[in-house]
Amino acid sequence: MMQQVEENALITRLSSLLPHRPSQLNGVQESDAELVRLPGSNQILAVTTDAIVEEIETGLYTDPYLIGWMTVMANLSDLAAVGADPIGILVAETLRRDAAEADITALQTGIRDACLRTGTPVLGGDTNFSDRLHTAGTAIGMIPDGSPLMRVRCKPGEVLFCTGPLGTGNAYAAVQMMKNVRSDFPPFLPVARIQEGLSLRTCASICMDTSDGVLATLDQLGRLNKCGFHLDKGWESHIAPGALTIAETAGMSPWMLLAGPHGEFELLFTVPPHNIPALQDAAQQAHWIPVRMGVVTESSGISIADWGTLNPDDLASIRNHPLGSKSDIPKFLRFLADLEERCRTSTKA
Amino acid sequence: MMQQVEENALITRLSSLLPHRPSQLNGVQESDAELVRLPGSNQILAVTTDAIVEEIETGLYTDPYLIGWMTVMANLSDLAAVGADPIGILVAETLRRDAAEADITALQTGIRDACLRTGTPVLGGDTNFSDRLHTAGTAIGMIPDGSPLMRVRCKPGEVLFCTGPLGTGNAYAAVQMMKNVRSDFPPFLPVARIQEGLSLRTCASICMDTSDGVLATLDQLGRLNKCGFHLDKGWESHIAPGALTIAETAGMSPWMLLAGPHGEFELLFTVPPHNIPALQDAAQQAHWIPVRMGVVTESSGISIADWGTLNPDDLASIRNHPLGSKSDIPKFLRFLADLEERCRTSTKA
Repeated sequence: MMQQVEENALITRLSSLLPHRPSQLNGVQESDAELVRLPGSNQILAVTTDAIVEEIETGLYTDPYLIGWMTVMANLSDLAAVGADPIGILVAETLRRDAAEADITALQTGIRDACLRTGTPVLGGDTNFSDRLHTAGTAIGMIPDGSPLMRVRCKPGEVLFCTGPLGTGNAYAAVQMMKNVRSDFPPFLPVARIQEGLSLRTCASICMDTSDGVLATLDQLGRLNKCGFHLDKGWESHIAPGALTIAETAGMSPWMLLAGPHGEFELLFTVPPHNIPALQDAAQQAHWIPVRMGVVTESSGISIADWGTLNPDDLASIRNHPLGSKSDIPKFLRFLADLEERCRTSTKA
Repeated sequence: MMQQVEENALITRLSSLLPHRPSQLNGVQESDAELVRLPGSNQILAVTTDAIVEEIETGLYTDPYLIGWMTVMANLSDLAAVGADPIGILVAETLRRDAAEADITALQTGIRDACLRTGTPVLGGDTNFSDRLHTAGTAIGMIPDGSPLMRVRCKPGEVLFCTGPLGTGNAYAAVQMMKNVRSDFPPFLPVARIQEGLSLRTCASICMDTSDGVLATLDQLGRLNKCGFHLDKGWESHIAPGALTIAETAGMSPWMLLAGPHGEFELLFTVPPHNIPALQDAAQQAHWIPVRMGVVTESSGISIADWGTLNPDDLASIRNHPLGSKSDIPKFLRFLADLEERCRTSTKA
């Protein structure tokens, strides 16, 4: 039996106990945001909630400005991945009882700046106090013409694209979580690809953001669509140069920037070959350039040019690897190095 | 200067740093849920978020079933108070890493049962792990005919009503938080007054739920509308008999069931005298009976028949009283007893 992804199994179990809405367009896991047709209307509402808890507790996010920023962007990125136009965001903040004024202001400023950067208003929120900081955002958007992007229904032969440079999320994690890894690059403040998502609605088959890392995203899309992916020769060139520099100082191979679980909020999407001119037109109008990464394959797993193949069990074992604290990182990197050895060998054999 | 309510001051400060939506109908604090006109439509979206954090950390909620139930109901009650028809709810769950299977199931069952009780689907959610349980819900609803209920714009002379028996929230808190207070009554599982809220939209001037306790609700409405309230003779009869019994065994006066900060999710609303027949018609159609409590007064504060008057500073001091743990309860009750002594005395003087 194929190894299951533990997070998927948990979500399926928790969700199975709850009542669902018949007019909801997506099943569990089938889209980055929930899609609901509004009563008496052709409009579709897109809503999504994402809490920043583990990122704070593991020490991955320590700067309150970044925490505020990510509370907004993590949610807006899910709206982007369904092609929704944001209406606004709600923010539930659990503040530390002993929080310094400056930290509260930094948190609010991070929320504000992420909202200003994306033209998204804060509609409201809730404030609680505890002995630690947690946040939960909920973003709400509209899909006016009734055709959202989802994670399902792509076909082998379609072309795989991304919206921009990959690997910066895991490079940030390496700087933040590992000893002696330094960065001279600007701070990690990813921007949700809202404009890109809007322009993809008419031409892309599937779309998902890379918030859990690139390989996890491709694995999830592969499981949902019973397909696989091939990454073309030159795949390293889609990784941000700054991220590659950081990986080098951290002793990580480039592919590990795609394998780690902390993503960078780019969108991965596939387009049937006949739709590529339409994609190029739409992207040009919205002032961005789609980056071609590879193709959808009939066979499962991810084959990477000049590297080897990760089968679904390999991918599940990457996604299931426990990463609860800084001390887990060296073990995770050794595990990835062993996996690399095995996948490259098996390809050669 | 009038004593300020600390929670209001905090919300004003946090909110002042954030960008707002020009097409949002309510200002900060002006309604229980956020009200946004949908682009290109006459429909109004109502959204609200509420996290269950302090209730868990203080020991007020210990039963995971109740925590699940309240995650849903606290949010639906805010929709009820604006007269919205629920579309669904999103639930962000932060589970304990060492949570027993039975506790996770109880939490989900509480969420499910609250959804079934109110006909509300779960649209989606987010799952995190920590060393303690927290939840955050976000409810989404629609106001199809464009006239939501808000907390503002009532006039002196209007009649104050509630949707049902009061005091059960604070009675629950007494049972849960005080030694030697027992209850033979059914468990505390309040139901959001959705149907009632929908039928109020055409006749009520203002509406707010009692989730923070009855006096805090009236105080908030008084501050927003620069008015006060008078509670008619017989006000004790609006308190649930079971709650009165609990108060007696806890050594609490009946009014303390209105003064405590843990409410019961009834709606308080005011109706101009000429609208009372319309209210009665609407309520009858929806199979409920409005309970007349008193009137809106020009003078600020709350005057209670056969009892005395709480001025805005008294009410602010009740709302600002710290209640972080069980050990704070006896001090809070002594404070209320002293206040009662003073308010009754000053009325007699």
